[in-house]
Amino acid sequence: MTQPVLIAGQWRDADSTETFQATDPNKNEKLNAAFPVSKWSDCDAALDAAVAAAAELRRLPAEKIAEFLEVYADRIAAAKDALVAAAVAETGLPASPRLADGELPRTTGQLRAAAAAARSGDWAMATIDSQAGIRSCYEPLGPVCVFGPNNFPFAFGSVSGGDFAAAIAAGNPVIGKANSSHPETTRLFAVEALEALRQTSLPLATVQLIYRTSHADGERLVSDPRVGATGYTGSRNAGLKLKAAADSAGKPIYLELSSVNPVVLLPGALKTRGEEIVGEFVGSALMGAGQFCTNPGVVLMVEGDATENFISAVKEKYSSTPSGTLLSPAVASSLSASISTLVGLGAELLVGGGESEPNRCALANTLMRTTGQAFLSDPDGFQTEAFGNASLMVVAKDVDELCEVISRMEGNLTGCIYSETEGSETDGSDDAAYDRVAFELIPKVGRMLNDKMPTGVAVSAAMNHGGPYPATGHPGFTAVGVPGSLLRFGKLTSYDNVRPSRLPAILQDKTPTGKTWRRVDGQWVQG
Amino acid sequence: MTQPVLIAGQWRDADSTETFQATDPNKNEKLNAAFPVSKWSDCDAALDAAVAAAAELRRLPAEKIAEFLEVYADRIAAAKDALVAAAVAETGLPASPRLADGELPRTTGQLRAAAAAARSGDWAMATIDSQAGIRSCYEPLGPVCVFGPNNFPFAFGSVSGGDFAAAIAAGNPVIGKANSSHPETTRLFAVEALEALRQTSLPLATVQLIYRTSHADGERLVSDPRVGATGYTGSRNAGLKLKAAADSAGKPIYLELSSVNPVVLLPGALKTRGEEIVGEFVGSALMGAGQFCTNPGVVLMVEGDATENFISAVKEKYSSTPSGTLLSPAVASSLSASISTLVGLGAELLVGGGESEPNRCALANTLMRTTGQAFLSDPDGFQTEAFGNASLMVVAKDVDELCEVISRMEGNLTGCIYSETEGSETDGSDDAAYDRVAFELIPKVGRMLNDKMPTGVAVSAAMNHGGPYPATGHPGFTAVGVPGSLLRFGKLTSYDNVRPSRLPAILQDKTPTGKTWRRVDGQWVQG
Repeated sequence: MTQPVLIAGQWRDADSTETFQATDPNKNEKLNAAFPVSKWSDCDAALDAAVAAAAELRRLPAEKIAEFLEVYADRIAAAKDALVAAAVAETGLPASPRLADGELPRTTGQLRAAAAAARSGDWAMATIDSQAGIRSCYEPLGPVCVFGPNNFPFAFGSVSGGDFAAAIAAGNPVIGKANSSHPETTRLFAVEALEALRQTSLPLATVQLIYRTSHADGERLVSDPRVGATGYTGSRNAGLKLKAAADSAGKPIYLELSSVNPVVLLPGALKTRGEEIVGEFVGSALMGAGQFCTNPGVVLMVEGDATENFISAVKEKYSSTPSGTLLSPAVASSLSASISTLVGLGAELLVGGGESEPNRCALANTLMRTTGQAFLSDPDGFQTEAFGNASLMVVAKDVDELCEVISRMEGNLTGCIYSETEGSETDGSDDAAYDRVAFELIPKVGRMLNDKMPTGVAVSAAMNHGGPYPATGHPGFTAVGVPGSLLRFGKLTSYDNVRPSRLPAILQDKTPTGKTWRRVDGQWVQG
Repeated sequence: MTQPVLIAGQWRDADSTETFQATDPNKNEKLNAAFPVSKWSDCDAALDAAVAAAAELRRLPAEKIAEFLEVYADRIAAAKDALVAAAVAETGLPASPRLADGELPRTTGQLRAAAAAARSGDWAMATIDSQAGIRSCYEPLGPVCVFGPNNFPFAFGSVSGGDFAAAIAAGNPVIGKANSSHPETTRLFAVEALEALRQTSLPLATVQLIYRTSHADGERLVSDPRVGATGYTGSRNAGLKLKAAADSAGKPIYLELSSVNPVVLLPGALKTRGEEIVGEFVGSALMGAGQFCTNPGVVLMVEGDATENFISAVKEKYSSTPSGTLLSPAVASSLSASISTLVGLGAELLVGGGESEPNRCALANTLMRTTGQAFLSDPDGFQTEAFGNASLMVVAKDVDELCEVISRMEGNLTGCIYSETEGSETDGSDDAAYDRVAFELIPKVGRMLNDKMPTGVAVSAAMNHGGPYPATGHPGFTAVGVPGSLLRFGKLTSYDNVRPSRLPAILQDKTPTGKTWRRVDGQWVQG
């Protein structure tokens, strides 16, 4: 039996001639459930229903949308066991603590934070110029397509994750395109979403789900006149094709693509607390088999004994730590290909490499090293992302060369610098190096860290999970964090001389909650 | 003699084999001064110098940038006579009140407002999550290319206008590409800018100027890896080509393109104050020979006596009002072509039409009318922008048809609805119509007006001079208004666990001014 798609509030048969199945990466075996590859007619129907839902949503108070997000979060928490079981089977991620105790609470927490943002209205940046008689705010943009990634089946899921929560909280319906590696998990979320919509009397087409389309139909979808915007998290190749299609139609598309997330370890830090950093690095780099957008893929250091000691210790840990399961056969083969590319460019293989295991999607933990000079001879090549449990150490001959390496790097989500702790016994030389390195690094990254690995992405108002192209499609937006992430799905509208009773609720003299933060005549005031 | 370009702080000969001259539209004669068409090497040199200037600017306190903007504003005010004379010769716009008393003070006012924004830092949306140890703000993005339009030689000028002021205030150097219709005016601004840079000891390559390039080099410029972003105001055709180039390189480009700015006149309004609206409409539509981005190009009404009276009165005024001078021969021929297109589609020519005058860039004021039904038979065609002193009246058979016409409209900068005044003698039917029309219109426009024509674009924090594609390239940004317009040229950066002394000044516990608005743990606080 082929699973139905969710269109216009109905679970119905897809218009499809093909199906696909997900793989259990712990067994390297296809799972039973078959999911449809939708033809354009399914997208077309979903778009029509989404347009109608968008119009209905515009007429509802934000409170109703907040209620839906909260009821949905409650239902997800109640359905935890089934969601975790499905995700374990489809992704190989451990049930606990990863899925049940980490990603699931993060997901419900995001939905509740988005609900709070919708209710408060703070995200809309309501601005009042009382003298000129002009008021402005961000408003819903229209139907949002969400393409979730393979590596967070809950927290970045197409109908459960950060893009979804942000799009809905901003007042838009979502058409989710499931990630092909975990369609059943996504389906279970959609089942809960539909029930939550029913419970809260929202338009049932506020959440719709298809599983897969042809590439051409995906491009047609994101560029359709009925679409407001798209959120995509995934591989660079597919993302840039969608971007080209959306751009040509003038449709915003927010991408979160690949990133090698450079980590700079300055000499003083390695000398005074190298062992500690080994632990932090290996923990971050091999966590979840390295399958994080913010995985520290490239480590930059300067020649010296402390650097050699660091590399030796990391090598030892990579050898002795069992390799995690990768998300899918595709991830395993792509990782294998990336390692071959890097080794082919001259990177020295210190440990690992090779082919995927036959009975499990997994590669040995892989550590490579190269020099700053070699990196500079082919900066693009050495920035090949090796998504998974593989890392590249780049040893520069001095800080000058290290800065030059950074100057040749593409946009990244994160950049880290470890330097000697204040008051430690070294000579303070890290301070001068820090200033130079940070000056080069900051323009290249969305988030700059000190003395901390990048894999934790806190759901914080100050978080930027974003960065310059090609880490994302625009350097001014974050995919994580409330209220910032909602702005991606908002349209700015000014109301000029509009009669008071006709203003949106949030721009009237008295707001619905009486507590919304607004910028009135240059001053931020609440209520 | 060919005028030099301004690159890296030097007025130097362009690398050029071709030149061009502007035309005095009041005489339809070429002006003497010759300006170079730069080859790529000029762009390349300007980009290198801009990158160096961007790095220097990042190290300077915002106060220095504010000082430059203010000194520049002072110098512009002092150079008023020469600037006005040059602009009169190149654009045909009246010296007074338009240029000397309207656009020039607006320009210096924008520069001073941008200075205040740079100084206060409010624009950067500094956000502090004290519990998570994460802080974020918007920072400079890198060199910004500015392509100014023909219709505002001062206030939207490439090295003097809103995009320029916003890009500089956000901390970025600007490479200005002069509009080909007023190169001498632009040159005079650059002369003052360079002196202001000297006076305030800013990097001299903070402001650079070239006059023209090949289309291919323009596209290469906006997509160059050294560029941070581009601001473009002008025709849709050229803008979309630049957009395609910038998009493919992942470079943000902010466009302000064509717009027909629909004005809806509801029956009650026409019945109770039709004459008053005739005056407002004709004043707005023919002001500056109709050459405003926010010119009310399409008027939507419902069949009836009041509508016929309105059209007759407008026709009378269009006949009796002398036609203004158009900005250039290109504007005149494009306007003539647009009128032909509309008439070719079946629009009835009520007055005007025809060819440009031989000794002046000017066409007779032109009024056309069509039906809602005809519009719906070719919505794209009837939305052809007639940039200049031409307007199209669309008479729908009822409010249903009027709403359908709006539903088929593209994105626009503005939309207006005139309705009967509260307490007037009519039957209140406009209120119901208003709700329906506004619901359709709001998603299509950046600024929604009531009982007011769209041509005034106040420099207000609540202004949105923007709108959905194809009015602009992104529905979330405004080109006018401080601090909002600065966000286009900012890069969002999070600082995660970064040691306090290494944070940008604006994110440290104590900010430089002590008065910056920041969002601290969800509350906006000052200082």
